[in-house]
Amino acid sequence: MGRLMRLRAAISAAASVVGGEEHKGPLGGVFDMHDSSDRFGQTTWERAESEMQRRALGLLLNKAKCREEEVDALLAGDLLNQCVASAYGLMSYDIPYIGLYGACSTSVEGMMLAAALCTGGMSDRVAVVSSSHNCAAERQYRAPVEYGSQRTPTAQWTVTGAGAFLVEREGDVLIRSAMPGIVVEKGISDAANMGAAMAPAVLDTLLRYFEESKTRPEDYDLIVTGDLGYEGGSILCELMMAEGYDIRSRYNDCGMMIYSRSGDDKHAGGSGCGCAATVTASYLLPKLARGELQSVLLIATGAMMSPSSVMQGDAIPAVAHLVHLCAPCGKANEHREIEH
Amino acid sequence: MGRLMRLRAAISAAASVVGGEEHKGPLGGVFDMHDSSDRFGQTTWERAESEMQRRALGLLLNKAKCREEEVDALLAGDLLNQCVASAYGLMSYDIPYIGLYGACSTSVEGMMLAAALCTGGMSDRVAVVSSSHNCAAERQYRAPVEYGSQRTPTAQWTVTGAGAFLVEREGDVLIRSAMPGIVVEKGISDAANMGAAMAPAVLDTLLRYFEESKTRPEDYDLIVTGDLGYEGGSILCELMMAEGYDIRSRYNDCGMMIYSRSGDDKHAGGSGCGCAATVTASYLLPKLARGELQSVLLIATGAMMSPSSVMQGDAIPAVAHLVHLCAPCGKANEHREIEH
Repeated sequence: MGRLMRLRAAISAAASVVGGEEHKGPLGGVFDMHDSSDRFGQTTWERAESEMQRRALGLLLNKAKCREEEVDALLAGDLLNQCVASAYGLMSYDIPYIGLYGACSTSVEGMMLAAALCTGGMSDRVAVVSSSHNCAAERQYRAPVEYGSQRTPTAQWTVTGAGAFLVEREGDVLIRSAMPGIVVEKGISDAANMGAAMAPAVLDTLLRYFEESKTRPEDYDLIVTGDLGYEGGSILCELMMAEGYDIRSRYNDCGMMIYSRSGDDKHAGGSGCGCAATVTASYLLPKLARGELQSVLLIATGAMMSPSSVMQGDAIPAVAHLVHLCAPCGKANEHREIEH
Repeated sequence: MGRLMRLRAAISAAASVVGGEEHKGPLGGVFDMHDSSDRFGQTTWERAESEMQRRALGLLLNKAKCREEEVDALLAGDLLNQCVASAYGLMSYDIPYIGLYGACSTSVEGMMLAAALCTGGMSDRVAVVSSSHNCAAERQYRAPVEYGSQRTPTAQWTVTGAGAFLVEREGDVLIRSAMPGIVVEKGISDAANMGAAMAPAVLDTLLRYFEESKTRPEDYDLIVTGDLGYEGGSILCELMMAEGYDIRSRYNDCGMMIYSRSGDDKHAGGSGCGCAATVTASYLLPKLARGELQSVLLIATGAMMSPSSVMQGDAIPAVAHLVHLCAPCGKANEHREIEH
């Protein structure tokens, strides 16, 4: 059986909610809902994040024309201490709640587990939700945004956004397999350089995936990471090159896609649970559903440190979970079948 | 299919590591390892908690005569911000890591997901690990233990301990079904009265379980919660009574079992991710494996608030996940088959 999970599931619907900076970015038009104030009608940033999750799941259920009682479980998580954005945001739904913590890898961790539950017949329909909020994350991990602290060139910008996905046995985009990540720690201890801490985790997962699936980068239209950003993305390409894989022509990163590069203080690109979640929900999945992309490796990466662990002098461990997404069969006819 | 997960899996091995207070308690002799100093050779409480997880998983693999590469995934979580006890504690193992956050329900959340992965054939062997550390949790959630703050009578004592479980298709104790919990919030906002916040979540899960499984409390030898303690346990029994179920003669709670009631400052009993995990690993599972218990409902409960959410005036949401554990078939022959 091994560690590559062979799956027979699909994403049947997806929804996204973002803040003002994300709406101003190059993908701004694709997201389902935004609030330029980032407040979503709430009095604290943490509650605003919860409200984004609540709205993302509501939009998802509407799109899928699905009632609460038809969803067997919610798999959800976020970056806040004790994952309160998810617990509070989703508690108005009468759906079993299974909490995850994979830092910024949470969306793909959730897709992988949801697809496994549906493949195995344990669940008919599982929703996956994850989020991050720039102002809530920055004050928890670094300093309140209102202080105006200067950021380093390798720093990433935590995305304000929530993404939601409905996973069942059939749907617009197939989940063919998944490779769960192994925690990797290579000595990076700079919390303003998460890309460098997370790139080695992607390397580890990709190498194991290519080996177990007996495929190569050329077998995929796109290899896309969740939030390595410009710094981590270029490190990954170099690390892969040293292992004999040139992924540069088909590599991209949600954190590089969500903001424009110049002049808006985003430095090394986007990060946060909401980064991979919103870009996948509203940009990548529609392209797969329309057949514009046929076969995609989506790898979301989490930096698993806490402010305490960093203050105690520990380096930053990271994990990278992978799912293989495919266009529906009709639209992928031309594409070489690379698995099974 | 519904929300009751029908499972065909088993717990083949379990291990526990505890601190000094737990070793002094009535179950002290059953745990696999203890350190009376609670330090486990480390310089911070957080690192001590990580070290407990590392040792618990090491003991588990030794007991099961299982090599790292034979384990397909780790499902792990704890109470520390960003679940660093698990991420750091388990990163020396070369096994895929899937992080969970279910607060004190994490052990049962993990068993449920691990059993689903094994039942569905996605994984052959999955380890579940969770932990809490009194000194790390108290300083994060309330006040450093060294301050000597006075505790209220409803306050529970966070267990210092880690439990680890190996789940595969066959083994000493069968996992027959699981019921994931729905997040319930009934207005309790006192972080020194978690039992009251969590009891309604158990009620919700138990009522849904009895209805979907078409069973009654009398069908089980033991209905055991993870860490409601004396306060929450008595509230649960009253709430169940009001719904027409008298569970008192077969009800117990891991938090009531792990410490002696009198004279040692434990007040309303034990709590924390390590409470259900260690008592289940070293006390309940051996009784099931020997056939002294035939059929047990284990319900672990998590209070999903954070210190920030409490300070912002939000009440405490809670979740309760349930697994149905059975003695192996030979030892359960006399027992009425209640499922399938």
